[in-house]
Amino acid sequence: MTGQTLRPFLTRATQLYPDREVVARTADGMTRYTYAEYADRVGRLANALRAAGVERGDRVATLCWNHDRHFEAYFAVPDLGAQLHTINPLLPADDVRRIVDGADDRLVFVDPSLADTLAAAYDPDAFESVEQVVVIGSSAPDLPVDSVTSFETFVAGHDADYDPPTVNEDDPAGLCYSSGTTGDPKGVEYTHRMLWSHTMAITTPMGLDIADADVVMPVVPMFHINAWGLPYAATAAGAKHVYPGPSPDPADLVELIEREGVTLTAGVPTVWLGVLDYLDDHDADLSTLSRIVIGGAAPPERLIRAFDDRGVEVVHGWGMTETAPVGAVSHLKPDLRDADYETQLAKRTKQGLILPGLEFEVVDDAGERVPHDGESMGELRVRGPWVADGYVDGPSETRRGDGAEGSVGDDAVEDSWLRTGDVVTVDSDGYIELVDRAADVIRSGGEWISSQALENAIMSHEAVREAAVVGVPHERWGERPVAYLVDDDADRDALVETVSARLREDYPDWWVPDRFEFVEAIPKTATGKFAKTDLRDRRDDPIDGA
Amino acid sequence: MTGQTLRPFLTRATQLYPDREVVARTADGMTRYTYAEYADRVGRLANALRAAGVERGDRVATLCWNHDRHFEAYFAVPDLGAQLHTINPLLPADDVRRIVDGADDRLVFVDPSLADTLAAAYDPDAFESVEQVVVIGSSAPDLPVDSVTSFETFVAGHDADYDPPTVNEDDPAGLCYSSGTTGDPKGVEYTHRMLWSHTMAITTPMGLDIADADVVMPVVPMFHINAWGLPYAATAAGAKHVYPGPSPDPADLVELIEREGVTLTAGVPTVWLGVLDYLDDHDADLSTLSRIVIGGAAPPERLIRAFDDRGVEVVHGWGMTETAPVGAVSHLKPDLRDADYETQLAKRTKQGLILPGLEFEVVDDAGERVPHDGESMGELRVRGPWVADGYVDGPSETRRGDGAEGSVGDDAVEDSWLRTGDVVTVDSDGYIELVDRAADVIRSGGEWISSQALENAIMSHEAVREAAVVGVPHERWGERPVAYLVDDDADRDALVETVSARLREDYPDWWVPDRFEFVEAIPKTATGKFAKTDLRDRRDDPIDGA
Ligand SMILES: Nc1ncnc2c1ncn2[C@@H]1O[C@H](COP(=O)(O)OP(=O)(O)OP(=O)(O)O)[C@@H](O)[C@H]1O
Ligand SMILES: Nc1ncnc2c1ncn2[C@@H]1O[C@H](COP(=O)(O)OP(=O)(O)OP(=O)(O)O)[C@@H](O)[C@H]1O
Ligand SMILES: [Mg+2]
Ligand SMILES: [Mg+2]
Repeated sequence: MTGQTLRPFLTRATQLYPDREVVARTADGMTRYTYAEYADRVGRLANALRAAGVERGDRVATLCWNHDRHFEAYFAVPDLGAQLHTINPLLPADDVRRIVDGADDRLVFVDPSLADTLAAAYDPDAFESVEQVVVIGSSAPDLPVDSVTSFETFVAGHDADYDPPTVNEDDPAGLCYSSGTTGDPKGVEYTHRMLWSHTMAITTPMGLDIADADVVMPVVPMFHINAWGLPYAATAAGAKHVYPGPSPDPADLVELIEREGVTLTAGVPTVWLGVLDYLDDHDADLSTLSRIVIGGAAPPERLIRAFDDRGVEVVHGWGMTETAPVGAVSHLKPDLRDADYETQLAKRTKQGLILPGLEFEVVDDAGERVPHDGESMGELRVRGPWVADGYVDGPSETRRGDGAEGSVGDDAVEDSWLRTGDVVTVDSDGYIELVDRAADVIRSGGEWISSQALENAIMSHEAVREAAVVGVPHERWGERPVAYLVDDDADRDALVETVSARLREDYPDWWVPDRFEFVEAIPKTATGKFAKTDLRDRRDDPIDGA
Repeated sequence: MTGQTLRPFLTRATQLYPDREVVARTADGMTRYTYAEYADRVGRLANALRAAGVERGDRVATLCWNHDRHFEAYFAVPDLGAQLHTINPLLPADDVRRIVDGADDRLVFVDPSLADTLAAAYDPDAFESVEQVVVIGSSAPDLPVDSVTSFETFVAGHDADYDPPTVNEDDPAGLCYSSGTTGDPKGVEYTHRMLWSHTMAITTPMGLDIADADVVMPVVPMFHINAWGLPYAATAAGAKHVYPGPSPDPADLVELIEREGVTLTAGVPTVWLGVLDYLDDHDADLSTLSRIVIGGAAPPERLIRAFDDRGVEVVHGWGMTETAPVGAVSHLKPDLRDADYETQLAKRTKQGLILPGLEFEVVDDAGERVPHDGESMGELRVRGPWVADGYVDGPSETRRGDGAEGSVGDDAVEDSWLRTGDVVTVDSDGYIELVDRAADVIRSGGEWISSQALENAIMSHEAVREAAVVGVPHERWGERPVAYLVDDDADRDALVETVSARLREDYPDWWVPDRFEFVEAIPKTATGKFAKTDLRDRRDDPIDGA
């Protein structure tokens, strides 16, 4: 019995599929090579990293888009027993600086187009650990760091034959920071074993169903939770890889799908909304594309409908940095295969069914499991072999069950539930639906009100541009909802009246916000999500008890 | 991060698929219940076992066919931290006795129809550890053991609510003995983690591709390497289970396929040859059946053709007790999908492609890797998370690479290759083909001669009923082949001449046996394989050096 490490996936792919391709759109055009050559490149890069002094336990960072060189680092760095730290270049410069500082990265790979991002984040103290910056390309731009090399120079003269050190399955292989929606980004470490388990799980039919015949194009960034694990899973299956390179626009994506015969692609809803708009005006042959995995945020129903009309299945998935990331996928269960389309759609828009290998439960504030009735809300907790144990750089409070508050008693093998911070319902078919963040849900009179449900309902009014709902302290009820609205020059009193009336139709009376405030704009996080913490800071005036 | 234990598979199936069915053909007719009820039954059985004194680390044996009660033990016993020891009732009574003795089983479950088998194996010394025999049914026959209970009595009064103890992934969950083809059956222990890894691997598309919509019927006995892991994988996927019960004949199997809508079934070639004969004379609707997994021995080409003609794919797999068992599956690679049928068939009859998660290599006697040219023979070695570390009851020599003879150097994470004892070739597409057993291959002048290839070629002559070829010591060449033939009253001199001539057409001259001996019968093992060790014992007269 050997350990669950990543390298055997690559060895197998090289042995069985030496001629299958890895393709990338790069700034200099298309790159195209085989698994056999890929393995050589991984070997060369690993030898170069070793020569640069990278050792077991070290961290190597990337600030890169989705391309072949980034993919090489995916195997080369863990093969050394080192840790691939993928930095999100979309984070504010402050966050990038803090993250490099916290992670103690020894080496940073950066795309030429992201050199400015690195420069903006640079600070000699925070970057003290960084011995070298390697710019992906044949030349290196000016950067405010001591040692800057081009990738070509970095690997030049190194052998493709690589003799890996002993790597243990519990060695960290990856590091990724969460998006920072609810606070500062938190560092989550992935061991080989976690990535191995996650790879196997998403490869199964109840995961993303990946086989050697697939042509996999991860549009979800490789800096965002390992592109949802697709580079590893595609390798395990022996599939063809297609990387869309820096800032692909819808035309690029459609062209890649057509030209490379992509069968499986994945990304957040906005990407696919953009592609849909493009498809409205352009002819495209999507005949090879069988499915698009959408996650990170809920895909609007119309997105699923529109791709269904084009013969492409949208597979909705849920996950988080802490779950490496895939935790649930919304497949149609056997007894729903014959249901009418609207019934099916209602299930497919939910976040899905927990993956085989994971456990889940949904608990209220008292730590009691809520019924699976599709209505009762609670915080989702998950656990399993690819769920993180805590954070390596972040709040010392790691949000883990500790046997005290929120513990679920002794019916668990170990009490190591991850509190996801997501508030969900579970229906009688077992489909999880995300209704809010635990930080955002409004606790009113012992019951929970979903701020997201209210926001969506309010925003469905044509005169409302944006709306955010937060809980405000209330003497009698604990918290009461207050809505912040951005309007389109409306009659505000009338607007509040219609909106409240509409809410009363769909929700209990006590869900209707106590106050509607009009603001210029809703504050947003780096990734464009509502920064509700900022709003809550404003809610200084509690509502009088009644 | 929690451990890789079996229970979460069942928990998930019960939560997500409470109404999906477990169906079994039993001596008393069909049994049919849901996962929800199955979980209750597992709980009740676990409570009963606990009350009977079964503790973590204990072994609980079964001498049972494929049915619902046997499946209950599959989860109930490991849930206790105990070990399910599935005994093969087809082994000679001597072996069963030795196995119970070696395993120190505390409790034995036995089918009424196998009570005689148990009685025949009984011996007070060997059965000293056995405190209780539980007969599956409502009454218990006479047996020469002290405490005999019926299953109904055993579980009566026990609660369905079960509170499992802490189980670690490294706790042994199962024990299975090898078939004893090359010597005494050897005990192989499976930890939770091994079974978890194997479950995930066979569930993937590159494995057996199992989803919730599947209806899985394992015909391969549950006493034979956990019915190839299908009961666990079907549970992980949320599939429907169909167990064919004691000694199903082809008519029973076809009826179950039709009535239960079986989509995936599995067993050794002889079973499916029997089903084919039956189908020649009977109408049957196999429309739900998409694939039959065949392994344990190579399926004859005509078997694959015949099922192809009926629209059912034969999926050929290779495995062994030591690999829990599935190690390779013969899927068509993407670039073979467009090949002509005969080319495809030539690949599909091979033992297949190594599963994702495993590593393999093929080495000659000097421990050198042989080229993947489809011709060079060597011993197959495998390693990975579901490959056994050695034997718990068997030869102290555990056939493991130890860094010395046969070691493959330092390019491996750990030097823990399992020598399979199978001699194979690997073609340039990576397909493994089993050509012989390492114990049977004839080493002549530094080259290897496949005894199996010669046997098949000789048996293709219509006047030959059976043939076995073994290596006999030879002064100059090391070993030379000698053939033992069972004939149909032929002109023996003429027969030897034609057979030799035919062999010369297909093989090098030096492959042709030096001697042909006619015998009454070829000695066989309990499972019907040629007992070549017996033949080798006869080859007392070495061939003169030339
Ligand atoms: N399919 C989905 N539908 C709706 N929301 C989703 C979906 N998938 C993921 N999410 C949201 O994204 C979260 C995971 O995102 P990520 O790990 O990138 O960081 P974050 O939770 O946004 O930020 P932070 O943890 O730093 O506050 C989930 O907890 C969930 O709230
Ligand atoms: N698809 C297949 N084609 C040919 N032979 C196979 C196939 N699958 C398995 N086998 C043979 O079966 C063996 C595994 O069988 P098993 O573990 O039941 O015991 P055994 O090897 O026959 O007996 P023992 O190890 O006790 O001598 C493999 O090593 C291989 O020789
Ligand atoms: Mg989060
Ligand atoms: Mg064997």
